[in-house]
Amino acid sequence: MKIALVGIGKIAVDQHVPSMATSSDWEIAATVSRSGTVNGVPSYTCLDTMLAENLDVGVVSLCLPPAPRFEYAAACLRAGRHVMLEKPPGATLAEVYELERIARDAGVTLFATWHSRMAKGVQAAKNALAGKTVAKGHINWKENVRQWHPNQDWVFEPGGMGVLDPGINALSVMTEVLPSPVHLNSARLHTPSNRQTPIRAEVEFTGSITASFDWLKEGDQTWEQTYTTTDGMVVHLKEGGNRCVVDCEEKSVGDLGEYPALYARMTALVEQGRSDVDLSPMVHVSDIMTLAHREIAPAFNW
Amino acid sequence: MKIALVGIGKIAVDQHVPSMATSSDWEIAATVSRSGTVNGVPSYTCLDTMLAENLDVGVVSLCLPPAPRFEYAAACLRAGRHVMLEKPPGATLAEVYELERIARDAGVTLFATWHSRMAKGVQAAKNALAGKTVAKGHINWKENVRQWHPNQDWVFEPGGMGVLDPGINALSVMTEVLPSPVHLNSARLHTPSNRQTPIRAEVEFTGSITASFDWLKEGDQTWEQTYTTTDGMVVHLKEGGNRCVVDCEEKSVGDLGEYPALYARMTALVEQGRSDVDLSPMVHVSDIMTLAHREIAPAFNW
Repeated sequence: MKIALVGIGKIAVDQHVPSMATSSDWEIAATVSRSGTVNGVPSYTCLDTMLAENLDVGVVSLCLPPAPRFEYAAACLRAGRHVMLEKPPGATLAEVYELERIARDAGVTLFATWHSRMAKGVQAAKNALAGKTVAKGHINWKENVRQWHPNQDWVFEPGGMGVLDPGINALSVMTEVLPSPVHLNSARLHTPSNRQTPIRAEVEFTGSITASFDWLKEGDQTWEQTYTTTDGMVVHLKEGGNRCVVDCEEKSVGDLGEYPALYARMTALVEQGRSDVDLSPMVHVSDIMTLAHREIAPAFNW
Repeated sequence: MKIALVGIGKIAVDQHVPSMATSSDWEIAATVSRSGTVNGVPSYTCLDTMLAENLDVGVVSLCLPPAPRFEYAAACLRAGRHVMLEKPPGATLAEVYELERIARDAGVTLFATWHSRMAKGVQAAKNALAGKTVAKGHINWKENVRQWHPNQDWVFEPGGMGVLDPGINALSVMTEVLPSPVHLNSARLHTPSNRQTPIRAEVEFTGSITASFDWLKEGDQTWEQTYTTTDGMVVHLKEGGNRCVVDCEEKSVGDLGEYPALYARMTALVEQGRSDVDLSPMVHVSDIMTLAHREIAPAFNW
């Protein structure tokens, strides 16, 4: 299928373009970006021009930041194109619900992607937990913001989500593997005195599921979740979900990388004429931001 | 229909019980409350006992605070009873989505009520704006927290929502009357230095719709919204939506009060086998709490 990529920045170059290169399903037919381009691919700076001149491009993948994404997505859907959205799928929940409506009215596919759900061990964990009752669980998601987002002040501005930007990846995995949904009981957010978004968070969901998010972790970086079922099985997801250990036994995992797997899923959704817009990770973040007890943490400087 | 009221506090006594008294549709057959009762009505302190002993009570109306509401609502729905929820319908979005699923699986009606939508002028405003394009709008919702919630510290605790507790009433009207949905562009929240929730907020939605919420308004209290269409019509909702003035002409309005109108709608929903769970006001509040620029306001004391 012919696809257009919109927003040729770091994530497009690092992940989206290489994913297409390894797949026979996809041909990058156009790009839309203020400055970025892809070698050998016709490039546009104006979305409407690209849509008008490339009527055979049936799919558009949006790799833009969340804030401008709504207008681009709405224009593509109204032009009858199937749309893929990077995570998080929008700046607000209200706008993504509106995109769902527009996609339904236009009869096209909308896919709100969560790349961490495609980590290689997630499906094995989901299969292990299926039909079970989870008695407790813990998410330990701790990384160094200075290493992963050096000098990116926007992560601490409103909408940047702070430590909930990596945290939403953990929550996208949690909502995928749990056999029944949970909701927030309480949360504590620690926001640096000179910033707008949290740098550390402790979260308690129903079902005795807790999460610790920390953006000041030095040394080994930690992206793990562990779930214990009422019959004593322990499911341990390591390395951001890429390894799954059940009762101390390493499970065999998928072989596709996260982004190639997202594009394979998009192929299936378009062929089946379906959408996939599961906003539960974003809903949990909104619930945390709405309900949390807020504390002031020491000032953060790069 | 026989109905049980759960949570016999101020709102139940002031609004729910009198509404039932004026309607021939409803008979209060039981109450569940830690301490409150209704004269002449069998009272319970345990929900499960009430459900077990009153198999002919088909509808349960929950007037509890949001925090404990989920467990009560889930138990009633699973017991095959239709359920009405006071506003806001829950403490988290995630739990209300889960209630929707449970109601659907149980084949019963769930009604997430927004009493301000039943203010007498709202339908006239909605009719006037139908099919039009709104060019701009403003919500002016300013009241004195010391007058309406004297010494109620919980309104400033996490989950209390602060000035967005009255604000969500305004947003429930906005989402009802607007001919097409909007989403948040930006917000500023002003939170007293000794409190957790905002006392003042300025909000900008798409479509040039703005809102000012203030909980320190002395003198005349203000609950107004004004919408101007692209063809110059001005729709003015006054007195919390109870008066509707279109192009300076006072429109005739409904005669049912807010709570009697909610119960009339519940009768219709049950008869039609439908649910009504529009979470858009709560989604806007979550988006505001998630995206807002936060500023520290002077300490608030009663």
